[in-house]
Amino acid sequence: MTLSVYLSGEIHTDWRQQIIDACQEQNLSVSFSSAVTDHQASDAAGDMLGAEDNSFWRDHKSAKVNAIRTKTLIESCDIAIIRFGDKYKQWNAAFDAGYCAALGTPYITLHDEAIIHPLKEVDAAGLAWATSPAQVVEILKYVASQG
Amino acid sequence: MTLSVYLSGEIHTDWRQQIIDACQEQNLSVSFSSAVTDHQASDAAGDMLGAEDNSFWRDHKSAKVNAIRTKTLIESCDIAIIRFGDKYKQWNAAFDAGYCAALGTPYITLHDEAIIHPLKEVDAAGLAWATSPAQVVEILKYVASQG
Amino acid sequence: MTLSVYLSGEIHTDWRQQIIDACQEQNLSVSFSSAVTDHQASDAAGDMLGAEDNSFWRDHKSAKVNAIRTKTLIESCDIAIIRFGDKYKQWNAAFDAGYCAALGTPYITLHDEAIIHPLKEVDAAGLAWATSPAQVVEILKYVASQG
Amino acid sequence: MTLSVYLSGEIHTDWRQQIIDACQEQNLSVSFSSAVTDHQASDAAGDMLGAEDNSFWRDHKSAKVNAIRTKTLIESCDIAIIRFGDKYKQWNAAFDAGYCAALGTPYITLHDEAIIHPLKEVDAAGLAWATSPAQVVEILKYVASQG
Amino acid sequence: MTLSVYLSGEIHTDWRQQIIDACQEQNLSVSFSSAVTDHQASDAAGDMLGAEDNSFWRDHKSAKVNAIRTKTLIESCDIAIIRFGDKYKQWNAAFDAGYCAALGTPYITLHDEAIIHPLKEVDAAGLAWATSPAQVVEILKYVASQG
Amino acid sequence: MTLSVYLSGEIHTDWRQQIIDACQEQNLSVSFSSAVTDHQASDAAGDMLGAEDNSFWRDHKSAKVNAIRTKTLIESCDIAIIRFGDKYKQWNAAFDAGYCAALGTPYITLHDEAIIHPLKEVDAAGLAWATSPAQVVEILKYVASQG
Amino acid sequence: MTLSVYLSGEIHTDWRQQIIDACQEQNLSVSFSSAVTDHQASDAAGDMLGAEDNSFWRDHKSAKVNAIRTKTLIESCDIAIIRFGDKYKQWNAAFDAGYCAALGTPYITLHDEAIIHPLKEVDAAGLAWATSPAQVVEILKYVASQG
Amino acid sequence: MTLSVYLSGEIHTDWRQQIIDACQEQNLSVSFSSAVTDHQASDAAGDMLGAEDNSFWRDHKSAKVNAIRTKTLIESCDIAIIRFGDKYKQWNAAFDAGYCAALGTPYITLHDEAIIHPLKEVDAAGLAWATSPAQVVEILKYVASQG
Repeated sequence: MTLSVYLSGEIHTDWRQQIIDACQEQNLSVSFSSAVTDHQASDAAGDMLGAEDNSFWRDHKSAKVNAIRTKTLIESCDIAIIRFGDKYKQWNAAFDAGYCAALGTPYITLHDEAIIHPLKEVDAAGLAWATSPAQVVEILKYVASQG
Repeated sequence: MTLSVYLSGEIHTDWRQQIIDACQEQNLSVSFSSAVTDHQASDAAGDMLGAEDNSFWRDHKSAKVNAIRTKTLIESCDIAIIRFGDKYKQWNAAFDAGYCAALGTPYITLHDEAIIHPLKEVDAAGLAWATSPAQVVEILKYVASQG
Repeated sequence: MTLSVYLSGEIHTDWRQQIIDACQEQNLSVSFSSAVTDHQASDAAGDMLGAEDNSFWRDHKSAKVNAIRTKTLIESCDIAIIRFGDKYKQWNAAFDAGYCAALGTPYITLHDEAIIHPLKEVDAAGLAWATSPAQVVEILKYVASQG
Repeated sequence: MTLSVYLSGEIHTDWRQQIIDACQEQNLSVSFSSAVTDHQASDAAGDMLGAEDNSFWRDHKSAKVNAIRTKTLIESCDIAIIRFGDKYKQWNAAFDAGYCAALGTPYITLHDEAIIHPLKEVDAAGLAWATSPAQVVEILKYVASQG
Repeated sequence: MTLSVYLSGEIHTDWRQQIIDACQEQNLSVSFSSAVTDHQASDAAGDMLGAEDNSFWRDHKSAKVNAIRTKTLIESCDIAIIRFGDKYKQWNAAFDAGYCAALGTPYITLHDEAIIHPLKEVDAAGLAWATSPAQVVEILKYVASQG
Repeated sequence: MTLSVYLSGEIHTDWRQQIIDACQEQNLSVSFSSAVTDHQASDAAGDMLGAEDNSFWRDHKSAKVNAIRTKTLIESCDIAIIRFGDKYKQWNAAFDAGYCAALGTPYITLHDEAIIHPLKEVDAAGLAWATSPAQVVEILKYVASQG
Repeated sequence: MTLSVYLSGEIHTDWRQQIIDACQEQNLSVSFSSAVTDHQASDAAGDMLGAEDNSFWRDHKSAKVNAIRTKTLIESCDIAIIRFGDKYKQWNAAFDAGYCAALGTPYITLHDEAIIHPLKEVDAAGLAWATSPAQVVEILKYVASQG
Repeated sequence: MTLSVYLSGEIHTDWRQQIIDACQEQNLSVSFSSAVTDHQASDAAGDMLGAEDNSFWRDHKSAKVNAIRTKTLIESCDIAIIRFGDKYKQWNAAFDAGYCAALGTPYITLHDEAIIHPLKEVDAAGLAWATSPAQVVEILKYVASQG
């Protein structure tokens, strides 16, 4: 079994790379995917189909183009990691968690202790809460082991 | 057809009551449900099963008790209204939106123009964005009409 | 059993009313629903949420508001009647047929012999092809009978 | 991830080939499928099982044989491209769009500005509207990128 | 709970009536449905949509009209009773059993000991095998009891 | 909303009656169902279809007749209460918990502290652990409240 | 795409081999599976788990062991071929057809003209009726073609 | 076809290894998976995310981490073997059986005659009952054969 892992949420720190690197170093049987994490490219995803004056529709068009990718990846992953950082609204991360919960896809949240309370519903529907990429790697190692 | 509508999100303003009252005044064939909106009762939902020292587990236990209710209501509603106010993280509202999206349940978001950008993924998977309870009522009136 | 029947397609002739009236006269245990069939109201459904300059987005917004209603009704009906007239593109009717086919909801098409060939895929996934509202009524009477 | 893309609709121009060629040139990790696009072969698909006098049943038989193929391919694709040209009824394309919508399969429509209005329901349930094969290729490139 | 029971199979003896009468006498909370059991009416179901020369297509058309009814009833029943008599092929009864098995709908078979062997796959996927209508009634009484 | 609650597990104490009585006293909008709880009747459920010499097949036949009832009730309930007492294997209760977990049906376990460890997988997939019928009633009251 | 084809029904003629050989000769991208077709081995499948005195239970046990195989294969195939010969009851073939119909798996029936009438429900839910293995091969060739 | 087999239940005897070894010796096309079977590692699975004082929460956290693995494996297996030994509560094995039953995944139970009665519900929903690893291997050999 190769575990397929979707990495959702925060794009301003290198948590994705830390997890991917550590799993590779340990030769874990895990593959990774995520949304396009280049912020500007992501915001401009809909511009490929023509410019928009109205900022709501520009966002709308881009979000839908991004959804082509994320919907496909989330629906086919085995496990999702949902990361909440200390900045921004990050509603898309909570949205992904809800999406996984409804599909029955197991997910692990990754966030600091400071935001336990506002994330209680998100954590309650997940299967583990980690506070560091290293912990996530430990869990993936355990889950992907020969048993 | 009686439309069953789930009201998710912000609990600090009276948007729920405004929608319910206006629908009743107009005799719309709509019924409403929502999470327990008494903040303290909701946070203490798990305490009925014994106190917890650790705040993570207290939150966890309460969130799970609340999920018994919200999961049942969201899965049986026809339409959800997802409200984002101008305060707090409100990750539970975005979680509910993701849950609805995965189930294919239509939802309407209700929020100000100021937060269009961080809500673009949530809006993209919804079927309408309203900026006032009155607009939500207009939509419900249209949707529940005899046609 | 009260059969719940969704009436999809053409809005420029009175085929819906003919079917509804005949079923009522014969006291059949059938209830009917459909999209909002007032053409102007339907095209303007999104305007309740604010005007749009761009005609694509006006259409988009209205189509999504209408989808809140049609999605709910189609997903809960027992049988759909899909009507194709002799004018206009009527892609929404074919879209509804495909939607029903994927859900496994039985549907009856209602159209003239002249358009058999372009409708062959739509007819192939349906369970009956009628050429008049009277025939549809006969089928509904048979299906809803005590047996 | 190799994206599996189903190409639905118009068979009288070379839009399929344009998309396939451009994706190959750019080495995108995308595979393509579609209905049998040889018009005569498709219309005669049922003749392999014996000739029919009645044109309705000839069409019916052929459409069902074609459905063996298209149902299997649509249900297993990740993304569909739904193309509407400027001729013919093309109800099968709209049918495929409805089928994808019910399954939750993301689709991109490909059509001219002239037919925005009659396609508004089809576009509303899709995730992007492109006006040229080149735009579709750009989207596929973005969606299939390493992120 | 009112159990909804679908009665499938043999139409040449009065087993349906025996079960219905006995359940009514005992005031069981059970409702019944079945295909149209008037043989001639059932074979002619498609004739309402125009006559057919070819007997295959006449049968096909009628079988599809009947499927509008049976599909709806089978998919909404709680329990099916599948009756095999000692005459005819009765492939439709076995078809209904397979349909129920795939849906996870519990069914009880009703047949003589003489045909145990050819029905072994059908019995294996069912939850009970009865040899008389009276036994079926006993089971329904037990299943619908207050417990 | 009337909550439909399935009561699974131990049949040797009066925990069911305690919950039902307390909910009735408090006029909660809750309805209850359960397997046939008369031990002897349950073990003999298959005897209605003829006696068996072999005890494996007698048990098998009875268990399947009981499954007609329990499968229907579990699949239609909103919430299950899974009770583990201090005697017997009670594998059927754990089986019901796994069944609910796979369906996504929320359940509450009811058991003493002494058996936390062997029930950890069952508790982990549930939404609450209660130690007394009174606690279950409190939760049901909260969940079924007007909010 | 390699089409996965399940061959159900009659085991007394070589129709399976004819189809498999012809597809291999033509290098079609098709793989085949079926139930164990050795009649005696199939009837004795349950004997591996101990002998039974009672012939009903012997059949039952064997049918269930066979179901481990057939259920897995039918649920994972793309297309089923359902063959009815001129002998025996063949209820298992009709059962498989009903199973496929409920799953939405396309199937082709293979039978003589003589049994059109008793197979009308089975044919109505299928996508093609062939009268010879050669016709089945032609259809598979068409369906598996590059298009 | 490579059958994917999940081995659930008892971890104190070498039944898993016996089955795996015998299948390998006979070159069966079968792959195996199971929960982490190192008792201590399994109980400590949650400790990777921080220690817990409260034994309920320690168990809970570990059970959830284990569920990431078991949920993924059970949902993707073709067949499960559910083993009950003569010691301990083994509620997790019965839980897995219920989970499989709800998913429609075929399972084989493996247990002694002494515990037939308390396992009757679990056996009734399974497709075979074996009393030795050798019997399980025989069944797997039969199921995975070329037919």
